[in-house]
Amino acid sequence: MLVLVGLGLGGADDITVNGLKMVQRCSEVFYESYTSIQAHGFDLSVLENAYNKKITLCNREQIENDTDRILDLAEKTDVCILVVGDPFGATTHWSICQQALSRKIPFQVVHNASILTAVGCCGLQLYNFGQTVTVVNWTETWKPDSYFDRIEANLSCGAHTLCLMDLTLGERTIEGIMSQLHFCRNKPEYKPPAFMSASAAAKQLLAIIEMRRQSGKVTLLKESSRCVGLARIGWPDQKIVCRSLAEMSTTDLGEPLHSLVIVGSTHALEEEALRMWQ
Amino acid sequence: MLVLVGLGLGGADDITVNGLKMVQRCSEVFYESYTSIQAHGFDLSVLENAYNKKITLCNREQIENDTDRILDLAEKTDVCILVVGDPFGATTHWSICQQALSRKIPFQVVHNASILTAVGCCGLQLYNFGQTVTVVNWTETWKPDSYFDRIEANLSCGAHTLCLMDLTLGERTIEGIMSQLHFCRNKPEYKPPAFMSASAAAKQLLAIIEMRRQSGKVTLLKESSRCVGLARIGWPDQKIVCRSLAEMSTTDLGEPLHSLVIVGSTHALEEEALRMWQ
Repeated sequence: MLVLVGLGLGGADDITVNGLKMVQRCSEVFYESYTSIQAHGFDLSVLENAYNKKITLCNREQIENDTDRILDLAEKTDVCILVVGDPFGATTHWSICQQALSRKIPFQVVHNASILTAVGCCGLQLYNFGQTVTVVNWTETWKPDSYFDRIEANLSCGAHTLCLMDLTLGERTIEGIMSQLHFCRNKPEYKPPAFMSASAAAKQLLAIIEMRRQSGKVTLLKESSRCVGLARIGWPDQKIVCRSLAEMSTTDLGEPLHSLVIVGSTHALEEEALRMWQ
Repeated sequence: MLVLVGLGLGGADDITVNGLKMVQRCSEVFYESYTSIQAHGFDLSVLENAYNKKITLCNREQIENDTDRILDLAEKTDVCILVVGDPFGATTHWSICQQALSRKIPFQVVHNASILTAVGCCGLQLYNFGQTVTVVNWTETWKPDSYFDRIEANLSCGAHTLCLMDLTLGERTIEGIMSQLHFCRNKPEYKPPAFMSASAAAKQLLAIIEMRRQSGKVTLLKESSRCVGLARIGWPDQKIVCRSLAEMSTTDLGEPLHSLVIVGSTHALEEEALRMWQ
């Protein structure tokens, strides 16, 4: 059997009782380490001690390249993959689930909290959110801005937009991939973990507004548009602030993980909530 | 202290370890019984036995009218309100949270799974969902169709729409309210629980398409549009089917709770997923 177990948002105890039972009955437990982080950071021993179980850390490549090997294992014994948040919050997990189903391997999912719903803690109604976007880290040569159109489309319907922040976890460096190809080095090189802040995301949005303005386009999102910055939601030190986009670009919310909500049309109750974070 | 604890989607064991610790440390535990149901139905003793705790059932009126009394209690002792799904999945809970914050009562939320993210189990990407709607039960005199415009707005952006089903839980009858007012009867009368099915929702959408067609309007949603019916997600007997809207209107998905997804533009991976439910 293969079980995907969501770990929720915060610490080791955010697993469900059902999820914990699954972890304890499985003979192999993998921890997917590339789509999010937990309150205790990367210290796997915290989970191993809390669940009293040996856990194997997997990065993106290991999960994606070794799916067949994991499923071979799941044909013989009970295998569990731990995922921060809800197993279906990230797109990659569906593919494992689908392969298990097509190989007729018994398959279960233990759902859990995700930032996609926990964002409701800022008092904006979940019903009024449009499509979610991810703000990607720009490089010198790669500055995608297509996600901005989704924010504009949401604003045009009055909908709020949840902007998730790009994160780099267990990603290989281009240099590492090249040297492995050219010199047959076996040890891949990984980039250090990197997390985008809400202020960096706000700066990028301001840059896109400016670029569009220079090319004569009018945007619905403005420097004065209100947004909500959320940091470490579900962790003991979570923080929520409501600022204009311009103000947000200089607001420090502290340690990761951050998210940003672009506020659309609001109801009276939502206004009351936003006033609390000013 | 006041704690809102999400119970997740399914059974007693879908509470998080953290949530269970909160329930056990609180001296008063209320169960909010009007926004959703769990796999075991309305049998509170299942939760009381699993959590080894006395739990008080509250309907909408009791939570909303007695918020002050609950908060008075929370000033003196640790009070917990159990909510199916995530505490912020339903709009009413934010108001309790806000009143606690404004009275400076220490306040915590234990997040959990919600249908809003668990719907990802159908293989449609959560990022591609637009605003969520609720399909309301029509009566002879009250046939609201404004939610249809949200579905159309989502379709025009290529976004999927999660349609939640109206449910009647612990609602008073008009007759009951009138007789209480006129004859000073003290015992309120409640409507029997009622749950809308995915097929009933599909029938209502077909009726709206037909009404709009007769008034000369062209809708993006058609009889042939694909939708996904989901039943009892997170429960042991969950069921997922993909059908045209017309077919869905005659498809029986069994016991509640149901949801319906109107499919927008799809990626190859999403198409592969939908094929599994045909």
